[in-house]
Order: sequence, then structure tokens, then C-alpha cells
Amino acid sequence: MGKINCIGILTSGGDAPGMNAAIRAVTRAALYEGIKVKAIYRGYKGLISGEIKEFHTEDVSNIILRGGTILKTARCQEFVTPEGRKMAYDRLVEEEIDALVVIGGDGSLSGASVFSNEFNYPVVGLPGTIDNDLYGTDITIGYTTALNTIVDAVDKIRDTASSHDRLFIVEVMGRDAGFLALNGAIATGAEAAVIPECKYGPDQLMSSISHGLRSTKNSSIILVAESEITGGAMGVANLIKDRYPDYDVRVTILGHIQRGGSPCATDRIIASQMGIEAVRAILEGQRNVMVGIMNGEVVYVPFDRAIKGNKPVGDNMLNALAILSI
Amino acid sequence: MGKINCIGILTSGGDAPGMNAAIRAVTRAALYEGIKVKAIYRGYKGLISGEIKEFHTEDVSNIILRGGTILKTARCQEFVTPEGRKMAYDRLVEEEIDALVVIGGDGSLSGASVFSNEFNYPVVGLPGTIDNDLYGTDITIGYTTALNTIVDAVDKIRDTASSHDRLFIVEVMGRDAGFLALNGAIATGAEAAVIPECKYGPDQLMSSISHGLRSTKNSSIILVAESEITGGAMGVANLIKDRYPDYDVRVTILGHIQRGGSPCATDRIIASQMGIEAVRAILEGQRNVMVGIMNGEVVYVPFDRAIKGNKPVGDNMLNALAILSI
Amino acid sequence: MGKINCIGILTSGGDAPGMNAAIRAVTRAALYEGIKVKAIYRGYKGLISGEIKEFHTEDVSNIILRGGTILKTARCQEFVTPEGRKMAYDRLVEEEIDALVVIGGDGSLSGASVFSNEFNYPVVGLPGTIDNDLYGTDITIGYTTALNTIVDAVDKIRDTASSHDRLFIVEVMGRDAGFLALNGAIATGAEAAVIPECKYGPDQLMSSISHGLRSTKNSSIILVAESEITGGAMGVANLIKDRYPDYDVRVTILGHIQRGGSPCATDRIIASQMGIEAVRAILEGQRNVMVGIMNGEVVYVPFDRAIKGNKPVGDNMLNALAILSI
Amino acid sequence: MGKINCIGILTSGGDAPGMNAAIRAVTRAALYEGIKVKAIYRGYKGLISGEIKEFHTEDVSNIILRGGTILKTARCQEFVTPEGRKMAYDRLVEEEIDALVVIGGDGSLSGASVFSNEFNYPVVGLPGTIDNDLYGTDITIGYTTALNTIVDAVDKIRDTASSHDRLFIVEVMGRDAGFLALNGAIATGAEAAVIPECKYGPDQLMSSISHGLRSTKNSSIILVAESEITGGAMGVANLIKDRYPDYDVRVTILGHIQRGGSPCATDRIIASQMGIEAVRAILEGQRNVMVGIMNGEVVYVPFDRAIKGNKPVGDNMLNALAILSI
Repeated sequence: MGKINCIGILTSGGDAPGMNAAIRAVTRAALYEGIKVKAIYRGYKGLISGEIKEFHTEDVSNIILRGGTILKTARCQEFVTPEGRKMAYDRLVEEEIDALVVIGGDGSLSGASVFSNEFNYPVVGLPGTIDNDLYGTDITIGYTTALNTIVDAVDKIRDTASSHDRLFIVEVMGRDAGFLALNGAIATGAEAAVIPECKYGPDQLMSSISHGLRSTKNSSIILVAESEITGGAMGVANLIKDRYPDYDVRVTILGHIQRGGSPCATDRIIASQMGIEAVRAILEGQRNVMVGIMNGEVVYVPFDRAIKGNKPVGDNMLNALAILSI
Repeated sequence: MGKINCIGILTSGGDAPGMNAAIRAVTRAALYEGIKVKAIYRGYKGLISGEIKEFHTEDVSNIILRGGTILKTARCQEFVTPEGRKMAYDRLVEEEIDALVVIGGDGSLSGASVFSNEFNYPVVGLPGTIDNDLYGTDITIGYTTALNTIVDAVDKIRDTASSHDRLFIVEVMGRDAGFLALNGAIATGAEAAVIPECKYGPDQLMSSISHGLRSTKNSSIILVAESEITGGAMGVANLIKDRYPDYDVRVTILGHIQRGGSPCATDRIIASQMGIEAVRAILEGQRNVMVGIMNGEVVYVPFDRAIKGNKPVGDNMLNALAILSI
Repeated sequence: MGKINCIGILTSGGDAPGMNAAIRAVTRAALYEGIKVKAIYRGYKGLISGEIKEFHTEDVSNIILRGGTILKTARCQEFVTPEGRKMAYDRLVEEEIDALVVIGGDGSLSGASVFSNEFNYPVVGLPGTIDNDLYGTDITIGYTTALNTIVDAVDKIRDTASSHDRLFIVEVMGRDAGFLALNGAIATGAEAAVIPECKYGPDQLMSSISHGLRSTKNSSIILVAESEITGGAMGVANLIKDRYPDYDVRVTILGHIQRGGSPCATDRIIASQMGIEAVRAILEGQRNVMVGIMNGEVVYVPFDRAIKGNKPVGDNMLNALAILSI
Repeated sequence: MGKINCIGILTSGGDAPGMNAAIRAVTRAALYEGIKVKAIYRGYKGLISGEIKEFHTEDVSNIILRGGTILKTARCQEFVTPEGRKMAYDRLVEEEIDALVVIGGDGSLSGASVFSNEFNYPVVGLPGTIDNDLYGTDITIGYTTALNTIVDAVDKIRDTASSHDRLFIVEVMGRDAGFLALNGAIATGAEAAVIPECKYGPDQLMSSISHGLRSTKNSSIILVAESEITGGAMGVANLIKDRYPDYDVRVTILGHIQRGGSPCATDRIIASQMGIEAVRAILEGQRNVMVGIMNGEVVYVPFDRAIKGNKPVGDNMLNALAILSI
């Protein structure tokens, strides 16, 4: 590997709070080491089309507190094709960018993996997704803020007038992973969580929910992950209305609220640590790895494992919810 | 009218942030005047069944910051019947309660109006509803907090990745009144508001929305009042998907989040002022009026006018949104 | 007066949340009317030095939710002198700016007043100050957000362990005006407020405070306006420690936290209304007036009255605090 | 050890957000196992005086979202004496409480340690302190919420008008530990942190601070731990004013705001996990240990080590701040 004189940085896929803290940390850690930084806008799309700008320390001032990503993100069909990736590679060469930091989730790191193998080009990934569904890291950038957003929302529902037969269903994100729904339920004292990991049929689902419905004397709250498997809030609501026609069921769909907001302290700190570490990894000659945090330690996880590994929500947390909702 | 020795207080209907501040103010203002206070739980239902407790100053300590209402609310079918109201009256006599303060919205004050006429019994109402749809007061208890909740939610959506053809639809409360949707749209810089006051057909609706869609280069946000007239967020989303199939439409339904949360400063202050004023009104011999704030001044509005008067959202605000969303 | 083809806009003095909403509204309302907008950075300083940029509609996108002011503010010694003001005037002529909108507090509008008289130049002011101390408007841009910030902070103090002889003193802004301290005290259920309007000697001060100290069974909270007259939190704390050595007195100084934060719905809405109205006022030929809101109606207040008029905190609010803290 | 039929629970020392989540989890986990729960009010004081009440599942409903502790805390001089501790022991015997869960910080767990050794009585501790200064756990209950409170406050200061020579000093808690100041500085993008672990003389202090002062083009923010070693915000402010008389130095003292507020998701979740684990530990025959979380795993730490172990703020975090503030 040749000397690293310039690092490129981009964000890709769904945005997540804390991405800006990561961009800031990568930029400043690189400048601290005397390395040039080039910011690439709109993810792989902007890499191909050349939306690229050199970043100096002041370009990342006052961004640590902002949600979203100042680099924007975009879907990019071209990058899925070999021709598109070749254009991306040519652009990196043309811009004299020697290594790339990609901040994103599952799909974005998959793309990075293919690309880096194809061109033998050093890429380091940072886990940026509110879903927390990347293997090899205990926590992803954005997850904790999204969890806090869910908690704030459900707390407000707790405030409202209690009546015996009222049921609130709150749909949260997590198409393939129940971290937000399950840990959100624990943190808000909800009665149940419906998550994609538990592939219940309608009867099992009703029985798992009705535990919460029967036991409580006041209104109940159920968190449902937005997923084809769970049916989402509307699906669960219809199921309940069928079986318990007396229940007054109210639906909240949080939607993209969960992607936004000023990042919480934890997301800013881990994003800062990971950003510094990404630059260190590149200087150490690491490539095609994601920087993660496992058991409090920074680790490098090969892309393949980060993407394909199965990260369980944890039986202990499922048990915890069962114990706490008695 | 005889001397007032004891005031009863209850909250009724949908709860609203700031109701606790009103309960506290009524309680302390009465005690300050040497008048006894009896708290009635679960609205008219608890009045009939006798869920009543004398309140002292410490019973309302540390409640000003809490959402919901410590007195709970409930629907009460019995109070709709003459027999039920007779039972309520008998209970007031039995408890030696000389006047009643009712905090609630449209329906609750209608009930109070019928009751007070029927038994020639002094009732003073406080406007407690997030919908802001009571005539004779510029602002209702809970409205400003709900507006802030909407603003916080929509701000988070603003943070997320912008793309040219993405449209966010946010459903807010307001079955018959568009205050939350319209003023929420102005406060968040949204592109359009769909409110029940504007009884558009699908074509007009689309033309009013498409103004925002065409003009903006980034993602657009539309606020829709939950209402049969508007069709709610889902109705509007379907309409748009039909006509603009290329749009990526995302729906958020805020639901009961809007009823909860710690009341903002404004709701606490107006609820405190109105609560003090309700006691003053009773002592002055006022009855069957709602305490309101018009043009910064406390006013007494006969129940009939408060309920039946038409309170317009204001053409100037409709114009403001049109100007600001260019 | 000639035709208005171009409006200049600047913010001056201490910044206040909602200033960006006002900038956005002035910009869009002018563009809506076909008038050019020039943004002037760093207040009068930037006007003199020529930090000026034409604004288009997208220049004010996504700023309504941000605290501070995108135009920055600065102190400007030169503008106090006739020479400095002449340079400012020359710059306006050079830039072909036909009228000026100044957003700021007392000092900024005083400067605007002198300037407009000197050069017979049309200036319209918007009241932008968290202190709420401008005459002729019920409410200033930034005041409500600052009040909410105070309320959030004091609520957190309420949560902490209660003990019989603990006293929390919270210093808030308001050098010459007690609106934040007094209304903050009402909104948080504090025991007392020490404000510059009540020019108590130490004995009176102690007696007004000790009312709250004696009556409460738990910890007490007192809000103190930062002011030479009150002595600030430290001054009051020392006074109390002298007389009640057993009290455990804890001080919080909120400082500039009160100037920041995302503006609340109310500040965004009034700033938007006032901004639209400022453009209307200019087009109507109004000049040398501040746009205010009195009793819910937009009013134009001559600069001299806005600055020099005495705006009382209101005896009714002082009474309310006395009643509510029993 | 005999069978455990009843567990007592108390909170002690300074309160911390998340204590209520821990109380709830201990209560429900015990009830889930068929064990009785007795709640002890006002810490060791209430244990001695017998302020004790049996708790059922509904006694801990809707408390997970509240700051403070529903069990209150108090200082207790008597518990420092052998006689006082004997009274406490007698009360436990009288109340038929077989084991005790103590939630608190350094001092509270020291007391628990002495007590448990003296009477060979099983006590399990939970780390409840915003300071994060207990050895054997990566994180204490309350720390993350306090950090978020600091971040929210400093973010608001970031919003305010920037000028070249303005310096904001924010005092945060942490008498003996710099976690809040250091990690708060990293999370807010502050220029420097003054913490008790770095026992600088005035010259070193100034040189460490002036790094931030010189390098930045806008206003600077410094976080200072409230400590005799650092001199607190006022001490640092005076030092700076002496050496850099041109600087406009503004002080904010956050004080007890940091102890309050609704706990963030992380604090609720770890408190829930630790509470469940405390009951498990008692049933396993563990005693005189604190439940901690190390590297993501639940651990039992003997009291002596939890209290006396030295928990460093981490050189990597000191380095991170240096890199990020360039």
C-alpha cells in the first residue's frame, strides 16, 4: 500500500443522527495527521458524478449537534453495476483520493465491500444506521438517538387519560431487526413488543400481546416494528380489533421522526471515537473493515461478517420485558 | 346566590397539557380566599359515583409540570340523561359543594351548560383542549404545547436526507378545526396544510398541495388534520400516489403524542391565570360562563357562545402559509 | 417616497431565538411582492463594511428551526458616531437598498431611530429580544423560547431529592426587566421571584423571600433576574446565607443558554407574522416604526415610544405568584 | 443463608435519573420470583425510623419516566455510628426483610459495606450516581442522562452570536471525577475541559485552555468540573480575565439541573437490567457486592473494590478531545 495523502468521506443510505459527528471526527483526525480530506456529497452517486470538495477544519465546525448528514445521502443504481463502480474508481484516482471512509448501514457497506474487492481499494466503514442491525458492533451510530426519540414519544402517550380498555399501538422502525421496538418497550415500560425476530402466527401474537392486555389495569402500550413480518401497527391493530372488539385501539406511526433530531451524547461520542479510529485504521493499513465497538473496545470487523452476521436482540432482553411488564 | 364555602373541580373529555396547572391554580386561589376545595375524579362519572376528595395546598404541589390531569377524565354516558344529571346534582348537594369548575373542551362544556341551566347551579368552565376550537378565547389550555410537540416532530423529519421527489405527510389532531395543522405548518416551514375548514374536492386538494410539490427542490412536508373531511394522512397519501406515482410518500401519524408531554410555559401561565380567574368569577356571582382570554384580556363567555360560536382559523394565517412556502 | 425595489435586512444586538424565522419571513414576503432582498451580515458593522449578499428564496430554507441568527450580530461602535452612520447610509445608497428592516432589541432600535431621522431613510424594526422589554408589543421574538428554556431547567431541579431546608436559586436574564424571572416563577411553581422592578432593600427582599421559605415543606426555588439591582443569584445567596445559616443554598446560573435553542412554535409564528407585516409596512409607506403585536393585533409603534415607553411586568402577575405559592 | 422471603429497597445520597427505573425493576423482578418487596423511604434515615411500606406491582407503575426517586433520599448522620447501624439492623429484623438493595453512589455503598460486614447481612448495591465514579462498572445509573442534559445546555450556547473574543465557561458536576466535563466537552465540540484528574497549576491550565482560545475563529466554550481542584467556573473565569483582559468571559453554572430530568433510554435500560440482576444476585446468595456492567456484561463487584478502585477518565478520551478541537 502506498502512502495515504488524502482520504475521501461519504455517507450513504438512510441517514442517522451522529453521522455529522463522524464526518467531523474523520476530517479532524485526518487533518491532525497531516492528511488531506475530500468530502463526497450524495453518497456513491456524488462519487460517480464528482460532487467532491476539499474539507478544512472549519468546514466541520458546529455540525456535531445537527441531525442528518451535511454530506447528504442518495440511492445510487449505477453503483450496483460494474460500470458504475468503475466510474467511481476512476473518480477516486482522478481526485487523488487514496482511501475511502463510508458511513452507512447494511446496504452501503455491502456496496463498499464489493467495490473494495473489485479494485483492491482501501475502504473503511462506519456503522451508521438507527436499526442497530450490523454484526460486530454493540451499537451503531444513530441507534441511541432513535431510541430516545421513541422514548420521548411514548412517554407523552403515557401522560394521557387512562381508561381500562384503551390500547395504544406505536409503530417504530426496524424492518429486519427488533432492537428499537424491544428496547424501546423496556425503556418506556410498555406492555409488549412485536418484532420481526419472533415469527408468530396470529394466535401466538395475540397470546403474547394479551398477557399485557389482561394484566394491566390501565391503558396498555404496544410497540410494533414496521415490517412485513409483523404487519406493522395497522396490521396488529386490525388483528386486535377482530378479537377484542371492545378495545379502543389508537395508532401512532412515528415514521421518519426517528431518523432525525439532534444526536444524543452517546451517538456523538461513539461517532467521534469511531471517526478517529477509522483514520487510524487506514494509517495502519487496515482495509475493507468496519470499525465497531464490542464490549467497550474498538474492533475492526471484515465487511462480510458485519453484513452477513446474525445479530440477535438477546433473550435476556426478551425476558426482561416479560418480567418488567407484570 | 348563597355564600360560596366550597368549590368542586373536575376535568372532563380528552386531556390536555396544562390541566394540572389549572387544577393547582383553582385550588390555591380558592384556599387563598378561605374557600374549601373538593377534587372530583374521572369527570362527571366520578361526580355521580362520588369519587371526591378534599384538596389542600400540598395536594397540588409539583403537578404544574406534569402532562395529563391528576383528576383523570372519563366519558360518562349517564350525564347525558336527566337522571344521571340529577344524581350528579344530588351528589353536589350532599358534598356541600356550592359551585363547580369544569375544565374541558366542547363536549364537556356543553354538558356543563345543560346541567347548570337545569338545576340553576353555578358552573364556571375553563377551555381545556388541544384543538383550540372554543369560541370566545384566543387560546385554549393545551393548544400551545400540542403545537410545540408537532413542531418538534416535524423538525426531526426536516433533518432527514433530502431527495427531489420525497414527500412527508404528517397527520395531526383537529377533527373539526385546522389550528394545529395550519399553524403547525407555518411554524415548521411546511409546504402545505390540509384542514377541515377548506372543503376541497380531490382536484382542488391536489392543486393546493402541488403548489408546494412543484416549487420546492428538496423533500416536501404536508400537515394533514385527522378528519373525515380531509381523509387523514392515509387518504391524502393515496390521492397523491394515484396522481404522482413517482413520489416517494412517507406517512407519520402523531396520534396521542399530541395530548401528552410536560406543558410549555404558555400553557402553564394561561392555565394559572384562568384558574385564579375562575375562582374570582364564582365569587363575583358569575355562572355558566367560560373564562377565556381575548386580546390579552380575561373575559367571561356564556357557555352557549363558547360552544356554538364559529372560530375561524384566520385568512391571514392561510395567506401567511402561502407567502412563506414560496 | 420612491418605489421600493430592494429591502435590506439585518439583525443586531443580543441574538434571540426566532430571529431566523423573521429573516425568512421578510425575505419571502418581499420576494412574493417582487422586491429584491439584500441580507446584511453582522448588524450595523456589516452594513458599514459592506458584508452584504442578495438573498433568494432558498437562502432561507430550513432556517426556521434554528436558534441564533444566520446573519450574525455584532456590536458596532462606529454606528454610534455620525461619521459611522454616514458610511452606513452611503453603503445603502451604493447597494441600491431602498428600505431597511432591523431585528433587535432596545439598543438596536435606538440606533435605527437616530439613523432614520438623520437621513430621512425608511427603517422598520422588529422586536427581537428575549427580555420582552419593548413597549408597544405584548411579546417580543425570543421571549417565549427563553421562558420555555427556563421552565425546562427549573423543572429538572424540581425532580431532585427534597429536603426541608434546601433552597435553590436560579439566575435568569433580564437586566432591566423581570418578565423572565416573574413569569418563569409562575410557570415553574417557584416560591418567589426577585426582579429589578421591585427595588427592595435587603430586609424587604428577605421578607418577600422568606414567605416562600417558611410556607413550604420541601425545598424551595427562587428565580432571580441577573441585574445590579437584584445583586444576581450570588448576591441573593449571600444575603440568605447571612440570615439563615442553616439553609443549604444551591446556585444555578443559566447564562447564555437562554439565548439559544430551537425557537418554540410561538416565536416562529409571531416572527413569521411580524416579518410579513414589516414588508407590508414598508410598502404602505410606514417608516421609523416597530412592528408589534398588541392584544392579538399587529400594530406599528413609533421607535421612540417602543424604546422609551415603560412596560410594566403587571401587578396581576405579581399577585398571581403570591396566590399560587401559598 | 436462609431463604429470601422479602427484599428491602432504598435509595441514598444524591439522586440520579434512572433510580426509579431501578426501583421498578427490583420490585417487579422480586414479585416475579414470588418474593415480597418493602420500600424504605429517605434512605438509611427512613430505615432507622421505620418509614417502610410494602410495594406491589402497581406501586411502581408509571415511574420509569420520572427523574429523582420516589423513595426520596436523605443524609443520615446516625448510620455513621455503630448505634445507628444497630437500630437499622433491628428494624430489618423486625420488618422481616431478608436482604437489602441499596441504590446510590460512593458514600451510600461505603455505608452499605460497613453495615453488611458488621451484621453479616446480605446487601446488594446498584451504582446510582451521575458522576460515573464507581469502579467496576463502565457506566452508572444517571450518568448518561446528566451528560445529555449538559449537551442540551451547551448546544444552546453554541447557537448564540459568535464573536472573535468571547469565551463561555460552563460549570458541570464532578467533584472528584471528570467524566461529565471531559465527555461533555467531546460531545459538544467544546474547546477544552478542566477536570480534577489533571492537577494543573495556573500556567499549565492556561496553556491547556489557550490552545482552544487561539485556534478558534469564533467563540470558545470550556467545560469545568465543579471541584476545589479546578476552582470551578468562577475560579477559571478569574484566571482567564487576569491573563486575557480583552476576553468577554461568560459563566454558566448548571448546578442541580444535572441531577434531574426524565431519564434517557440508556439509563432506563441499564437500571432495569441491573435491578433484575440485583434480585438474581440475592437469590444466588451473592452479598456485599455492587451490580455493574463491564464490557457489556453484568458483573458483581465487591463493595470495597467498587468504592476504592480508581476509575480513570481514559487517556484515549483526553486525546480525542485534543484531536477534535483542532
